[in-house]
Amino acid sequence: MILTVTLNAALDITYRVPRLRPHHSHRVSEVIERPGGKGLNVARVLATLGHEAVATGLVGGATGAALRDQLNAYPGVTDAFVPIAGTTRRTVGLVDASSGDTTQLNEPGPQVTPAEWAAFADRYAELLDGAAAVALCGSLPPGLPVGAYAQLIRTARTAEVPVLLDTSGEPLRRGIAARPDIVKPNAEELAALTGSTEPVRAARDARRRGAHAVAASLGPDGLLAVTGDGAWRASPPSRIAGNPTGAGDSAVAGLLSGLAEGLPWPERLARAVALSAATVRAPVAGEYDAATYDELLPKVRVASHPAAA
Amino acid sequence: MILTVTLNAALDITYRVPRLRPHHSHRVSEVIERPGGKGLNVARVLATLGHEAVATGLVGGATGAALRDQLNAYPGVTDAFVPIAGTTRRTVGLVDASSGDTTQLNEPGPQVTPAEWAAFADRYAELLDGAAAVALCGSLPPGLPVGAYAQLIRTARTAEVPVLLDTSGEPLRRGIAARPDIVKPNAEELAALTGSTEPVRAARDARRRGAHAVAASLGPDGLLAVTGDGAWRASPPSRIAGNPTGAGDSAVAGLLSGLAEGLPWPERLARAVALSAATVRAPVAGEYDAATYDELLPKVRVASHPAAA
Repeated sequence: MILTVTLNAALDITYRVPRLRPHHSHRVSEVIERPGGKGLNVARVLATLGHEAVATGLVGGATGAALRDQLNAYPGVTDAFVPIAGTTRRTVGLVDASSGDTTQLNEPGPQVTPAEWAAFADRYAELLDGAAAVALCGSLPPGLPVGAYAQLIRTARTAEVPVLLDTSGEPLRRGIAARPDIVKPNAEELAALTGSTEPVRAARDARRRGAHAVAASLGPDGLLAVTGDGAWRASPPSRIAGNPTGAGDSAVAGLLSGLAEGLPWPERLARAVALSAATVRAPVAGEYDAATYDELLPKVRVASHPAAA
Repeated sequence: MILTVTLNAALDITYRVPRLRPHHSHRVSEVIERPGGKGLNVARVLATLGHEAVATGLVGGATGAALRDQLNAYPGVTDAFVPIAGTTRRTVGLVDASSGDTTQLNEPGPQVTPAEWAAFADRYAELLDGAAAVALCGSLPPGLPVGAYAQLIRTARTAEVPVLLDTSGEPLRRGIAARPDIVKPNAEELAALTGSTEPVRAARDARRRGAHAVAASLGPDGLLAVTGDGAWRASPPSRIAGNPTGAGDSAVAGLLSGLAEGLPWPERLARAVALSAATVRAPVAGEYDAATYDELLPKVRVASHPAAA
């Protein structure tokens, strides 16, 4: 079983409009609602890959109830969310059918109380028992301590469960200091953390700050990994056009499933890059195209890099 | 008691963003959620004016439950909605704080079954007993017969309850043929109905088609009424700048409350125009500014018009 944590879950709403005209009124031609938040995306991809995925985090209110209803329809993902009094946020993606571009509107998350956070921490410790790996994903809702992920990483390390962190800003900085097994920043987050816009240098710096391994997303160019076992660059055979929403979450699912299966780093990276590209090419944001994945997986180039720290 | 009917109720969500940038991602700085749909706006204004308002219509799903929760917080509006299996639509208004402009996104309504429509018609007939007037407002959700308003008008006329219709398109055309006491189209709806862009001629035409009285909204220029008792133009003392959302619903509340109080047409029109202008000036869409209303009411010019049919 692989555990995913989504503290700031969301009800993702996608509106399709023929053409977005600012300051006008639009009839929405298509409404899609689905459980959202990075950890939930990871759980869905893990389940599609055949892994047992357990999704936890915080949900509440009418939107939280709608999210759980919909989560129950996903085969292979077990709902282990912890209820809160606040209301789960919505995100609204406006897809302009004329251009394919998306305008995104993200509500702030609900206020979480110290008692709710303590109840979550207890549940999380229980769920780690029997987990092959855990992913901590996304932003923190208001009310949580900035060191929330650092605390969850320490709990995972005590339980000897490999832990991956995918967040940004101060929660990433504090989390890295708690020595997670893997961090998966993108190049921008890595630069904000380390002050270096050169990814190899920045990844080495992140390792010195505490991360055992750094798998940095380079967008359409693939992934750079700097680990204790070596350093690699993994690239798709060509640039893939499409919607990048959820591509990073699919990469996390690739890395974690490979870790849980005991695959060496180059194979984990190939899987992560192929899943990520197959997500960009999928018609629905946050899902992946299985045929593209099967086609790309053997074509991902993984090159050893002399930059190992 | 005044009854309002909102067949395609909505959960109105307002998002405030510092500046709307199409095809970018935005953190929403403020989220406001309120019960929406034209009949509900009318009921709220009636309650503020001191009338007992009963709001009926169709609601369902998680958004419908949220709408009812919030409706319970409004003093003076009694919830008499009829439940359906489908999910009440949302409307999203994106307020660009840099310009004050709003971009509106309206979901389609839920599918309504014939059995649900029949259950509503029964409940509506019960509610008419004791109503001083009834307002039928807004669009029809999918599944309802295009003659739905015509049927509700006939029921009201049988019950001898004065009935006002505020809708557009084919439901307006069919509704007018059922001889409602008042229709309140705007100039555009009236032109679409009659083919005439000259409001006085179009209003006379609408009367010939069956409406006993036509109160046509001319936007910032006020109202034109053509009735069996005479014709009038009512104009605010000056053009009012602001957000016109809900101004038409406030005009309906002004017309209906005046009817229920036995006021003559010129006083009803003055009230409707002052409420409408006070709604444009209110900071929140769909509410009215009481001080502006008190200030404007004695200043509305109501001029008799030679155009009575």
